[in-house]
Amino acid sequence: MSSYVLALDLGGTNSEIGLVDRQGHIFNRMSLSTADYRTVDTYIDAFYKSAVHLTEPYGGLRSVKAIGAGVPNGNIYTGNIEHAMNLPWHEQIPFAELVAGRFQIPCKITNDANAAALGEMEFGAARGMKNFIELTLGTGLGSGIVINGQVVYGHDGLAGELGHVCANAASNARRCNCGKRGCLETYVSATGVVRTAKEILTKTNKPSLLRTIDHLTSYDVYSAAEQGDEVAKEIWLYTGRLLGRKIADFVSFSSPEAVVLFGGLTNAGKWLLEPTEESLNKNLLPIWRRKIKVTVSGLDGADAAILGAAALAWQI
Amino acid sequence: MSSYVLALDLGGTNSEIGLVDRQGHIFNRMSLSTADYRTVDTYIDAFYKSAVHLTEPYGGLRSVKAIGAGVPNGNIYTGNIEHAMNLPWHEQIPFAELVAGRFQIPCKITNDANAAALGEMEFGAARGMKNFIELTLGTGLGSGIVINGQVVYGHDGLAGELGHVCANAASNARRCNCGKRGCLETYVSATGVVRTAKEILTKTNKPSLLRTIDHLTSYDVYSAAEQGDEVAKEIWLYTGRLLGRKIADFVSFSSPEAVVLFGGLTNAGKWLLEPTEESLNKNLLPIWRRKIKVTVSGLDGADAAILGAAALAWQI
Repeated sequence: MSSYVLALDLGGTNSEIGLVDRQGHIFNRMSLSTADYRTVDTYIDAFYKSAVHLTEPYGGLRSVKAIGAGVPNGNIYTGNIEHAMNLPWHEQIPFAELVAGRFQIPCKITNDANAAALGEMEFGAARGMKNFIELTLGTGLGSGIVINGQVVYGHDGLAGELGHVCANAASNARRCNCGKRGCLETYVSATGVVRTAKEILTKTNKPSLLRTIDHLTSYDVYSAAEQGDEVAKEIWLYTGRLLGRKIADFVSFSSPEAVVLFGGLTNAGKWLLEPTEESLNKNLLPIWRRKIKVTVSGLDGADAAILGAAALAWQI
Repeated sequence: MSSYVLALDLGGTNSEIGLVDRQGHIFNRMSLSTADYRTVDTYIDAFYKSAVHLTEPYGGLRSVKAIGAGVPNGNIYTGNIEHAMNLPWHEQIPFAELVAGRFQIPCKITNDANAAALGEMEFGAARGMKNFIELTLGTGLGSGIVINGQVVYGHDGLAGELGHVCANAASNARRCNCGKRGCLETYVSATGVVRTAKEILTKTNKPSLLRTIDHLTSYDVYSAAEQGDEVAKEIWLYTGRLLGRKIADFVSFSSPEAVVLFGGLTNAGKWLLEPTEESLNKNLLPIWRRKIKVTVSGLDGADAAILGAAALAWQI
C-alpha cells in the first residue's frame, strides 16, 4: 500500500492528473478542464472524483501516499496559489490545505517551473545532479534552480524568476506582462522570438519566407531556418546570444553543473543551442569556460509536468 | 579546552590572525606580512609560530578547536588556493591540508567574500537570516550568497562571482581584469567609481571639485558629494542605479530577505544607498517591491574578515 503519489499539473485551461510510482512510471492519467470550474471548491471536488476513478484499478486512494501539484504562482511555503492571473480563481487560495482536507492525504504545491526542475532531477536529464538550473522556454520563461540538491525557494517561496531579469536596460526596451521593460522572457520565449521576428521584418527589407506567414509562431521561425532562411537564422542567433549571455550571469551566481532547457522553444534544436553555447562561453569567467553543460530536458513534454509534481509529492 | 578557533584573513599584502570564541569575541590578534614569504611553506611556518605566540595566554594551541581561513580564490571543497593572482604563490596550493598537517588541527578555507557572508550571518547584520546576499564593495566586487542558511558554493566551489555579471553588454564596455568587458565590478567598486569619475570629467566640461585632485579615490568622490559637488553626486547616482538594477536580478534568482553591503565603498552612505534602493525597487517584480532590505554590514571593517574565517572554523 501507499506505493503511488498523485500528481497534478494545474494549467489555466487544462489540468493533467497522473498516478505515479517512485520510479517515475505513470500508471494512469486523466485530464480535467480547469476553465470549466468557476470556484476552486468545485474544481477540487472534480479533482477528487477523477482521482477516485483514476486510482480504482490500483488500490484506490488508500494506495496514494501524497499529492503534489505544479500550479501557476504556487507557493510551497504557504501552500497558497497567490493571485494567478491565468487561473479562473484570482484571489489567494489555500490550495494545498483544501486538497489535503478533501483527500485526507498530505499535499504540497509549487510553481510549474520549480516542479519541472524537480522532475528533471528525479527522472530526467539532471538525474544525479545537485546543482543545475532549469529554464522552461514556453510562452514565457520560467526557471527552477537547484542548489545542493534542493530547489531554491528563497525567503518567501518565490525565488527563481529568471524570466524577469533584465536583458535590455534601455528605456525603450520591450514591455513585459509583469509591468517592467526588457525582461528576459520578452526576448527568449515563444512570444519573444515572434516579437524579434516582427521587429526585424518591419525594420528591414530583407527577403524572408516569414513575410508570407499571417500568424507567425516560433515554430515557423524554426521551420524557415531549416529551409535556409537568413532572417530566421538571424532571429535564432539573436535569441541564443542573449540567452547565453544571461546564462553566464546565472552561472556566476550559483555555479551549476548544467543548465537544462525545457519547453516548446527547445524544438528549435541547434538553431537555438549553438548560439546559446557560444555566447555562454564567451561571457563566462575563464574558470567556467567549456565546463557548463547546456542540455535539453530528458523528459517528454507531455509527462514532464506530471513527473515534476510527482517528484514534489515523493518529498513529503 | 577547545574553546577557541583560529581565524586567518589571508590578503595579498598582509594577513591577520585572530583567536575567536563561539560568540565572536576576538581575544587576541596579530599581523603577518604575506608578501614577505616566497613559498607557502615558509608562510605556514610563520603562521604557526604566530599562532603559538597568540594562543599562549589562552591555553596554547590545545585550546584551538579548528582553523578557518578566508583566502583569495580559496575553494572550500578542495581546500586549495587556485591560482590567486594577488598572492606571492601562483600555483595551485593545497592550503587547508598544509595548515591542518602543520597544526594537527582541522582547517577549512573559502574565499574572502564567502567568509564575509558567514561572518555576517553569525555575528553581523544578517544574524538570524537564512537567505541573504552579501556584496563586498572594495577594490573589486565580491559576493557571498546564503540560501537556506548555507553559503552557496555551487558544483565546483566557485559560486558567487557577482562582480563578473554583465552590467553593460556594449562591445566597448569597460574592460575587466578577468578579461571580459562590462563586468559589474568595473562600475560598482572603488576603482569603478574612479573610472566613472574620470569618464565624466573627460567627456564633459562640468565644473567639479574633483578636477583639482591628482590621484582621485572613491573617498574623494564621497567627500565632494558631501560638499555639494554636482558631478560627484552624478557619479553616485550612476553607480547606485546600476547596482540597484543588478541587485534586482539577484533577487529574481534567490529571493533573499536582505542584501548586505560591505566594504570601503559603503562609507559613501546615503549617496550610494539611496539611488541603489530606488533603482532596486524600480527594477524588481511587483511581488518584491519595498520588501527587500538593503543594509550595510554590521561588522567593523577590520574585524569582519577575521570573524568570517572564525564562523567558517566553527562549522567544522
